[in-house]
Amino acid sequence: MSMCESADCKLCNYLGTKEELETSFNRVEKQNPKCKFGKEGVCCKLCSNGPCRITPKSPRGVCGADADTIVARNFLRAIAAGTACYLHVVENTAWNLKKIGNGEGSLKIKSPETLNRLAHVFEIEENDINKKAVKVAEAVIADLYKPRFEKMDLVKKLAYSPRYANWESVGILPGGAKSEVFDAIVKTSTNLNSDPVDMLINALNLGVSTGIYGLMLTNLLNDVMLGEPKIREAKVGFRVIDEDYINIMVTGHQHSDIAHLQDRLIDEDVKKRAIEAGAKGFRLVGCTCVGQDLQLRGEHYEEVFSGHAGNNYTSEAVLSTGGIDIVISEFNCTIPGIETVAEKYNVKMICIDDVAKKKNADYIRFDMDKAEEISEMLIDEALNSYKRRRKTVKIDIPKDHGYDDVVTGVSEGSLRDFLGGTYKPLIKLIAEGKIKGVAGVVGCSNLTAKGHDVFTVELTKELIKRDIIVLSAGCSSGGLENVGLMSRSAANLAGDNLKAVCESLGIPPVLNFGPCLAIGRLEMVAVELASELNIDIPQLPLVLSAPQWLEEQALADAAFGLTLGLPLHVAISPFIDGSKVVTKTLEEDLVNITGGKLIVEEDVVKAADELEAIILDRRKSLNI
Amino acid sequence: MSMCESADCKLCNYLGTKEELETSFNRVEKQNPKCKFGKEGVCCKLCSNGPCRITPKSPRGVCGADADTIVARNFLRAIAAGTACYLHVVENTAWNLKKIGNGEGSLKIKSPETLNRLAHVFEIEENDINKKAVKVAEAVIADLYKPRFEKMDLVKKLAYSPRYANWESVGILPGGAKSEVFDAIVKTSTNLNSDPVDMLINALNLGVSTGIYGLMLTNLLNDVMLGEPKIREAKVGFRVIDEDYINIMVTGHQHSDIAHLQDRLIDEDVKKRAIEAGAKGFRLVGCTCVGQDLQLRGEHYEEVFSGHAGNNYTSEAVLSTGGIDIVISEFNCTIPGIETVAEKYNVKMICIDDVAKKKNADYIRFDMDKAEEISEMLIDEALNSYKRRRKTVKIDIPKDHGYDDVVTGVSEGSLRDFLGGTYKPLIKLIAEGKIKGVAGVVGCSNLTAKGHDVFTVELTKELIKRDIIVLSAGCSSGGLENVGLMSRSAANLAGDNLKAVCESLGIPPVLNFGPCLAIGRLEMVAVELASELNIDIPQLPLVLSAPQWLEEQALADAAFGLTLGLPLHVAISPFIDGSKVVTKTLEEDLVNITGGKLIVEEDVVKAADELEAIILDRRKSLNI
Repeated sequence: MSMCESADCKLCNYLGTKEELETSFNRVEKQNPKCKFGKEGVCCKLCSNGPCRITPKSPRGVCGADADTIVARNFLRAIAAGTACYLHVVENTAWNLKKIGNGEGSLKIKSPETLNRLAHVFEIEENDINKKAVKVAEAVIADLYKPRFEKMDLVKKLAYSPRYANWESVGILPGGAKSEVFDAIVKTSTNLNSDPVDMLINALNLGVSTGIYGLMLTNLLNDVMLGEPKIREAKVGFRVIDEDYINIMVTGHQHSDIAHLQDRLIDEDVKKRAIEAGAKGFRLVGCTCVGQDLQLRGEHYEEVFSGHAGNNYTSEAVLSTGGIDIVISEFNCTIPGIETVAEKYNVKMICIDDVAKKKNADYIRFDMDKAEEISEMLIDEALNSYKRRRKTVKIDIPKDHGYDDVVTGVSEGSLRDFLGGTYKPLIKLIAEGKIKGVAGVVGCSNLTAKGHDVFTVELTKELIKRDIIVLSAGCSSGGLENVGLMSRSAANLAGDNLKAVCESLGIPPVLNFGPCLAIGRLEMVAVELASELNIDIPQLPLVLSAPQWLEEQALADAAFGLTLGLPLHVAISPFIDGSKVVTKTLEEDLVNITGGKLIVEEDVVKAADELEAIILDRRKSLNI
Repeated sequence: MSMCESADCKLCNYLGTKEELETSFNRVEKQNPKCKFGKEGVCCKLCSNGPCRITPKSPRGVCGADADTIVARNFLRAIAAGTACYLHVVENTAWNLKKIGNGEGSLKIKSPETLNRLAHVFEIEENDINKKAVKVAEAVIADLYKPRFEKMDLVKKLAYSPRYANWESVGILPGGAKSEVFDAIVKTSTNLNSDPVDMLINALNLGVSTGIYGLMLTNLLNDVMLGEPKIREAKVGFRVIDEDYINIMVTGHQHSDIAHLQDRLIDEDVKKRAIEAGAKGFRLVGCTCVGQDLQLRGEHYEEVFSGHAGNNYTSEAVLSTGGIDIVISEFNCTIPGIETVAEKYNVKMICIDDVAKKKNADYIRFDMDKAEEISEMLIDEALNSYKRRRKTVKIDIPKDHGYDDVVTGVSEGSLRDFLGGTYKPLIKLIAEGKIKGVAGVVGCSNLTAKGHDVFTVELTKELIKRDIIVLSAGCSSGGLENVGLMSRSAANLAGDNLKAVCESLGIPPVLNFGPCLAIGRLEMVAVELASELNIDIPQLPLVLSAPQWLEEQALADAAFGLTLGLPLHVAISPFIDGSKVVTKTLEEDLVNITGGKLIVEEDVVKAADELEAIILDRRKSLNI
């Protein structure tokens, strides 16, 4: 079978040995050529007169919608759905915190420090730690549930003030986030909104909700419940799968949903059950962002977490090792492709949030009220699956895949601690030119921007070669760590200045912030830098690239990046090329609105050139 | 230019004279051939690896999603968006009622009787009429804003109890309606839900919210504010446009948003301003559903409302008469095609709800708090546009278009009154076989099911010929009334039995319930019949057809119809043919779940045969 390329050669070699296995890698070629209308965003399926497609000879759909309307509508709907995904995550996270505060789920607050900081920012006065958790959670939930005509309270409290002022002046401060998403879906329905500019402004409004709630707050609420990240070395790749254990692969984005389970798996009575079944115990194997979140907080989960195996498009291969006994999923990016692989390797699948119900999975709804009961059910299922399948399935784990020395646990807080309690040393390195600038290389992994993680890895190499330090969050991290770019030895691939910095500080040139949710942490780092310098974020020598964006969520991330006033590069156009108004607004006009700028560039070196040029320009403006 | 057909020959003849005018009618041919993948629902644009298209040679998308997953995802997302549209309408309607109750908007409750009935059903005890209005509105809003895990309160209070029991047993009772929509959007995002059956069950859950809140409650809340429908004769068609007046065309679904304006337009001081400008006064010209709602309540608006001109796809032609001076729109179905026509005929466009912001329209946000101020602004704009344009634009109104004697104002209440305060006479006629059964021919108008209203009109003729009385709600009504089927003389087209009934009662064989929202009224009629007979709705000799469904909202209506346990015919498949699981579930299995059954039949006679057969079968089961 034909197979798409991957930056991860060992993964390719491994998959090459599995001739009987069909994975996403094999399906890329089968889906060529692609529909031109879909790629350009000029296909509309909103009504029974359609589908309509815009061409020079048919410049309007039956209803009269032109390319600008159709593209903007498709684009806004995708962003609204992506924002909805993140808001679903932050909402569940907040409910979990509230319930923990109320004594449910038999879990304790792991970071009272983060809770105190949040309570302070939220202006909540409360001494009891549990009541404080409840009040913090309630403040988040209350904002999410406001009607659209009531602005949310926490945006002003959490946003960097120059940004808040910009958003207010531009008119993109969101009302109740869920209602904003809701109305964006209404707007993009049949024969409703036809104004591309109104819809793009709306997309930015959703970007603010995505960033402040879906990204920033999810991390912070998780920090409260799951512990703050600490910088440490960790194993990554297929080597983390130890066949001596009962291996639970977790996929999704809602780490607090497995908070009880992960604690329970290492209780003596549970371990004993694993041992009786012939295993050494239970292990969680990370895949996708919930795995990245576990890795990020690995300091607190050394025993139960075996490590992060790979990103979204690695998950099929992970299952094909035979070493995984059960998949517990609670969100994306749980690709449908794992269903057939799970069947083939006799792997039980259980879904604990029905928004991500997989066709072949059992559904056990997670509720913090019943966390203990649910954990027992999941443990039973894992044990049963282990016993049932291990006799029948051949295990083939490529133990040479991955690295032992990936630097993980980087967050806005752990990085500050590492730098000595202040970001000044980093600013000094930037000011001196030892670090030319900062690039966030974030977002997903896809298979079509030159192959699996190929663009991400090549662009990152180009950037570090130019002394630009790279911060990563999302499935991009999974790709970068599996090819060694997050190990200290990768300093050798950096330009001389950055290499010297890395060697002197003992860091790799690519810093691993973990899950895509941690794009919110990158924002907090940006705020640390900007506030130290007393400037606005768009003035920083800081650029973003989501080179291999995949999902609607990534487009919501992108909207957030654009509201931050940052240049944002993507290697694949987000289906907007069919509209002059939409492309011009995002690629040219927006810089005068929020300061942001969408850059679509499918060539690695040209993309690096453009990002570097922006950084140099920013340095010049700052006189550094 | 090529032009699609219309059941409305006079409209076609009129458009035939406008050679320089491009309308939707001309664009139908240009959008052929249609994309097969889109038609079958097997195109997926959810990620940057795509678009993917399912074919025999590529049975899965890159991610592994198969046709069942892709079709179900597209279908659920469309229904979620349609439900969102209706919920947006009911939410705004409830806010308007609440504000009126609080003394804002200087409007009075027009039907205390409906308010009392609602308060009784809601179990609200309150004597003050305004406070009662506030409490009723708050109960609706509270339900809409519940989280998904809390079931809504009013479903049980409003639903027919055998239906409620079915919904409960099937597991489709909705939690907070906005959150249900929200999570359906999440479900259908990239790499989330892949289970077609789970998604179809979810679609039914949304159907319940659509029906109870979006449809039934919107009508009842509007009855409170705008007055109950009364049966009367009315003018329809282009003849309603009187060039001696300043004509305001209204489009949308949110009648209460123009409640203040419509009262204000006939105040003496405002009339005086029109007269000073050279007109006889102001008139509202109905188009789309808000026009139907005005027509339905025409008894209360005889002076200001000139009549219903036509449905969604008639609106371009209405503007091209030159007789319209301004368009005030607040929702769909405001087709983008009117934008270019409005420009050509120098017609000002103003949008009062940004979900329906049209590209060329000014936006004045409606808020009941500021109703007086907004009405003044709209009146100013209408006056200015009238003065500016009338000298320059040729007026060409085909006064022979339409009818003077359309029977309108039919509702669950006015029909009961007409029948003598009870539905027993209707039941008796059905039991005696003088009326064979009841068909709701509802929903939109499209241009592709044989042409503009062609299928709707032909099917209706087939049904009445077979002694099946037709109730209509939606743009379908606009089509049927403009070809004379809602005039008493149409009795001649009915079968002998039905003809005799019509002649003896003095009714047409097709009853006009008005806007698509009034599908909720049809449900109330069904409940009247079923409860009188002490049976469940699916046992009634009652069928539904939305032959020319157009929009996502229509699919949400369809979901409601299927939860009612009714057979539902459509002439164009709702983009599901690519999935065996989806088609089998909706067309075969569902009958054992809710009793509902989707029938896709593109031949008029075959559709009528199938609907008649079901009616005969139901009659047999009832021993009548």
